[in-house]
Amino acid sequence: MSLTLADIQAAHTRIAPYIHRTPVLTSATLDELGGGHLFFKCENFQKIGAFKARGAANAVFSLTDAEAARGVATHSSGNHAAALARAARLRGIAAYIVMPSNTTKTKIESVRRQGGIITFCEPNTAAREGTCARIIAETGAHLVHPYNDYAVMAGQGTAALELLDQVPALDLIICPVGGGGLLCGTAVAAKGLRPSIRVIAAEPAGADDAARSFAAGRIIPFDTPATIADGLRTSLGEKNFPLIQTNVSAIVTTSEEAIVAAMRRIWEVLKIIIEPSCAVPYAAILEGKIPVAGLRVGLILTGGNVDLDALPWLKK
Amino acid sequence: MSLTLADIQAAHTRIAPYIHRTPVLTSATLDELGGGHLFFKCENFQKIGAFKARGAANAVFSLTDAEAARGVATHSSGNHAAALARAARLRGIAAYIVMPSNTTKTKIESVRRQGGIITFCEPNTAAREGTCARIIAETGAHLVHPYNDYAVMAGQGTAALELLDQVPALDLIICPVGGGGLLCGTAVAAKGLRPSIRVIAAEPAGADDAARSFAAGRIIPFDTPATIADGLRTSLGEKNFPLIQTNVSAIVTTSEEAIVAAMRRIWEVLKIIIEPSCAVPYAAILEGKIPVAGLRVGLILTGGNVDLDALPWLKK
Repeated sequence: MSLTLADIQAAHTRIAPYIHRTPVLTSATLDELGGGHLFFKCENFQKIGAFKARGAANAVFSLTDAEAARGVATHSSGNHAAALARAARLRGIAAYIVMPSNTTKTKIESVRRQGGIITFCEPNTAAREGTCARIIAETGAHLVHPYNDYAVMAGQGTAALELLDQVPALDLIICPVGGGGLLCGTAVAAKGLRPSIRVIAAEPAGADDAARSFAAGRIIPFDTPATIADGLRTSLGEKNFPLIQTNVSAIVTTSEEAIVAAMRRIWEVLKIIIEPSCAVPYAAILEGKIPVAGLRVGLILTGGNVDLDALPWLKK
Repeated sequence: MSLTLADIQAAHTRIAPYIHRTPVLTSATLDELGGGHLFFKCENFQKIGAFKARGAANAVFSLTDAEAARGVATHSSGNHAAALARAARLRGIAAYIVMPSNTTKTKIESVRRQGGIITFCEPNTAAREGTCARIIAETGAHLVHPYNDYAVMAGQGTAALELLDQVPALDLIICPVGGGGLLCGTAVAAKGLRPSIRVIAAEPAGADDAARSFAAGRIIPFDTPATIADGLRTSLGEKNFPLIQTNVSAIVTTSEEAIVAAMRRIWEVLKIIIEPSCAVPYAAILEGKIPVAGLRVGLILTGGNVDLDALPWLKK
């Protein structure tokens, strides 16, 4: 099994009743600054405030009734947790969510609001996976991995499907990469619909496992990510990597300073709230890592879930 | 002379090439919280970040070539200054802007970016008006008052014109009131197109001259406004007041706490940046000052120009 354009198109039909078709914003000011024509696909306006609503919905609504009956489970401290809890609630099944004990209160509340059943664990990968495996053994729930899952990737790819429908003749799409779920969906959708398009991934230099893996031709996991872009601290999934090798033109890295500057500029100019992970593609443009002059460039803005009490430009 | 629906429709045709037709956002979360169906007209996405781009454009492009030849002038420390400078630049004429010496750097830069010719004065009404009158005497520039001007009001009313086209069957429109330019344009447009609609104004309790004037039946100016909503500190204009008396159903006031809470909730839920003045209509709903249960309610979100280094919920 793998991931095809047809899978993503089927996902879009399946999840359309449960997600927003998000708007695409443009800005004359940002275009003048950068010399390219930028189209921002606003998944910060998506249900639960992030594109993760798409992949989780597709995974949950792809299950047969028998598969779904005993619920779904995942481990996540972020937007995927809320997205899976929401999708399960919409289908009327249980969602078991394993969260590290140091998860922020906002994210815990967001999962609770969606009716997720939370189990806390020690904040490390072994504990997360172990606890999740135990709960699955006990409940018979179906695992929905945040990114190493073809149904999830197909759902995430529906954002690019809409973007290409909303904006003709794009030359390039830039999207951030953490585990690779969004990147795979985006790249397969974009190359499938428009073979001449390039898809470039942007990644924080402080969590550059995807760039290293892409250069080396094999997955090089990275255990000590250091970046404000908390959604991109994960390492590439094994199902994701070959799809990235086949469909992605380049992976560039960005500094922390550029991520904060890009986030702030988008707040100031576009007047929208985006989270640090979401600013990484524009940061790559700001730093000159991706030349855009004269090009029509789509950027997937991934999410807008920010702690308004702790903005990065106000930190010492 | 006064203000009619036809004036606003003509204004819309005149300024359409120079402004954004801004989107209308909705939120299932906010609707569940309040019990009404809320439609947010996003003038924070307007050119220069505020609805003021509309009125200034209409005033500038309504002038004959002879009237326009020697430029335009105004006194403003806020969004009208940038809006007038922009409209003048688009028409290729000079814009003389009188700003109080304590204007924030961001707002000064915003006017400079648009090519406005700035004169600073002492930060009081007499100095602003005196300096502006002197410059007009010297240059022959045409005064474009921020709100006590029918062409400006007609321009501001085009936001409501679009809103009623974008959203059918509204029961109610809520908009903030400072000098009354937006309120007059909104009320005349809305009542003209849909006589059964109600238009309600919301005002900070700390600058409640409009509510007092409306109750008393005569203009009661207010010299010591105390509110975070800096766009609403001005007192009603004499051309504005009779139009408000005729077309507005009620003027309600909101606390400072509700303004900050409303601003924050819109940031968190809608994922958009709005300035404090812009939060006042939703603050009135939050405080229960305007019952909305079961109603279809339009809110004009007026602007998104915020100092990101000084957010109100982070102040001591």
